[in-house]
Amino acid sequence: MDDFKIIDGSITSPKGFKASGVYIGLKKSKKDMSLVVSDVLADVAGVFTTNKVCAAPILVSKKNIANGKAQAIIINSGNANACTGEKGYENVITTMNKTAKELDISSEDVIMASTGVIGVPLPMDIVIPGVKKAVGALSYDGGQSAAEGIITTDTYIKKVAISLEIDGKEVIIAGMAKGSGMIEPNMATMLSFITTDAKVDGKFLQQLLKDTSDKTYNMITVDGDTSTNDMVCVMANGMAENNIINAKHPEVKKFIDAFYYINEYMAKLIVQDGEGATKFIEVEVVNGKTQEDARKVAKSILNSNLVKTAFFGEDGNWGRIICSIGYSKADFVVEEIEVFLGIEDNMIKIVEKGGSTGFDEKVMDEILKEKNLKILVDLKAGSETAKGWGCDLSYDYVKINGSYRS
Amino acid sequence: MDDFKIIDGSITSPKGFKASGVYIGLKKSKKDMSLVVSDVLADVAGVFTTNKVCAAPILVSKKNIANGKAQAIIINSGNANACTGEKGYENVITTMNKTAKELDISSEDVIMASTGVIGVPLPMDIVIPGVKKAVGALSYDGGQSAAEGIITTDTYIKKVAISLEIDGKEVIIAGMAKGSGMIEPNMATMLSFITTDAKVDGKFLQQLLKDTSDKTYNMITVDGDTSTNDMVCVMANGMAENNIINAKHPEVKKFIDAFYYINEYMAKLIVQDGEGATKFIEVEVVNGKTQEDARKVAKSILNSNLVKTAFFGEDGNWGRIICSIGYSKADFVVEEIEVFLGIEDNMIKIVEKGGSTGFDEKVMDEILKEKNLKILVDLKAGSETAKGWGCDLSYDYVKINGSYRS
Repeated sequence: MDDFKIIDGSITSPKGFKASGVYIGLKKSKKDMSLVVSDVLADVAGVFTTNKVCAAPILVSKKNIANGKAQAIIINSGNANACTGEKGYENVITTMNKTAKELDISSEDVIMASTGVIGVPLPMDIVIPGVKKAVGALSYDGGQSAAEGIITTDTYIKKVAISLEIDGKEVIIAGMAKGSGMIEPNMATMLSFITTDAKVDGKFLQQLLKDTSDKTYNMITVDGDTSTNDMVCVMANGMAENNIINAKHPEVKKFIDAFYYINEYMAKLIVQDGEGATKFIEVEVVNGKTQEDARKVAKSILNSNLVKTAFFGEDGNWGRIICSIGYSKADFVVEEIEVFLGIEDNMIKIVEKGGSTGFDEKVMDEILKEKNLKILVDLKAGSETAKGWGCDLSYDYVKINGSYRS
Repeated sequence: MDDFKIIDGSITSPKGFKASGVYIGLKKSKKDMSLVVSDVLADVAGVFTTNKVCAAPILVSKKNIANGKAQAIIINSGNANACTGEKGYENVITTMNKTAKELDISSEDVIMASTGVIGVPLPMDIVIPGVKKAVGALSYDGGQSAAEGIITTDTYIKKVAISLEIDGKEVIIAGMAKGSGMIEPNMATMLSFITTDAKVDGKFLQQLLKDTSDKTYNMITVDGDTSTNDMVCVMANGMAENNIINAKHPEVKKFIDAFYYINEYMAKLIVQDGEGATKFIEVEVVNGKTQEDARKVAKSILNSNLVKTAFFGEDGNWGRIICSIGYSKADFVVEEIEVFLGIEDNMIKIVEKGGSTGFDEKVMDEILKEKNLKILVDLKAGSETAKGWGCDLSYDYVKINGSYRS
């Protein structure tokens, strides 16, 4: 934490990034289109949904990102442009072309992301003039507006910026994201966009984003449903004028740590604002035989509806936790594992030797009233660790997702 | 269906089976111990939870079932005897010994099953006299009582019996089960017990039970949580005096069909009475590349909280269905699959060519008011099929599982 500092900023804080967030008419009244543009062609890396049914903007953006270069990201909320067939694909190309033309850049250097209802054709009579409006609104302090334009029923905007020094130059990394919520409850699309003025090797950046995503975005869960539109994208435009960052750069660890911090921060914000969530739950698994094992255990606990409803009910139901560890398919000896539950500086051992420790339930009841809770699982099977984050399952989750789309 | 008929019976309908269900004090006031006994040593087969954290009765019963013979099943509700360590294991042995002694049989021929709260030691001062009471209450028409003794917060008892003719002899197969609900919301333990007076080859019976369970109990889901105590057990005592049934018996198909019917019936009852369920959902997947693919797709749809809440809200949100198919990891071409939604004799095509068919949403809204709904997925990737059953996710599920154990 000593190597970087959090600043009051946004994705336009790094040098040479403009952004805007505007209302174009896809939603009823809130901002529904955002644009992020680098002054110069930037190195770009992206990770995309693994859902076989993926939205048109994902398909096209994957292609445009393949050469490792991009200059603009256009994002609409209110319509996912998923399951929209050939026409949906064409609509992405048309939107990208319009964006490129207005910005006077190549359309291959435009990335598009969408979030909202599935299966409704993108209304191009709204989108095309919308692009022009978004370009017209671009500014070097438009990061806040852009963060507003990508959210749907998120209850707050999600952004962060940090500053660090590399090669004696100030480097800024910033991010904005949207989480699980939508105007028309449909799909918990997660979008996250990172900008930095650091000069970063393209291949290194892609690998760093993949590794970081595996440990952050891929370790959060609201309801276990993988969206058709998920996307994380980072643009690095090099305007900080540091020496190019790759695995051999003497200060690479500093950059990796800062980059990880940004992404973990965004990932946690998404879960904290999960649909209907009243509790934020961190699961840390230590001493797994493999990292995959540690990840499986964390995910298994966080995805258990029984564990989630118990947290909602503030019930220290340790049986459900150990049950969900049991069906995680990780390798461990049941009688050896230990499970702790509590808050960061007050963790109580609840399970050992295959059974309850006989902890004081009254003390636990008090702890469970906290909003941020933690589960620590010691698998005693190796030395690998994993962390994951989730939320509880409340009446409001059912309400939000059980209501009619209209 | 022509080869067998459903009769008004229970697990004591097959010849030579006595049963009882009694109140011993594990629950507040309802029956909480059941006993099923064959007059003669029976062939037995069992399938057990795959949860690595499994309850003491599962561990011991697996051993006792290994030689393919058993004569009695003792079941308690109100206490799962899971995560109870060495003492829990000893308590199972003690209970089995007491049961064997009272029945004058070998304790290796006793099977035990438990359901209820995890991690609480079995109160042996209640269980031991309870066993004596259960033995004393045994009768040839005790099947109904036994079915009552195994349920927890199930809203009705689950039993079925059918009659068929093999080698000119009447053969009866009967079953009882309990589903997802408990006095102290904790674990959705599924227990199912089948009796038959058919003479069946032991190895054939075990394989038949495994194959049937894979297609029935293993294809239902209430919340995706695999219990520590799940058990399905069948006893065949041969008293119908048919020729021994194995794969080569000329009427084997008739027996397999009847056996499958019993188990599918019990499995469906469990889901219909799922915690908080207001809708029963059948998913049929056809033309999968492999059976595993077809199963994955069915399970993926049925386990999606977003699909489940949409059904609760009577919302024809087809986007969520195709999304959950998309992340199932099955092999198919998105643009080729077709999805139908509706009721048995009124299925409406909702997805084709990767998008909506533009079906009439008003007609769909009417259909979705029905209690029993069906989804049919045509993967167009092969010829394998699978069926699965689930329920919606309602406020009551959250309420039941969010409340304090006490």
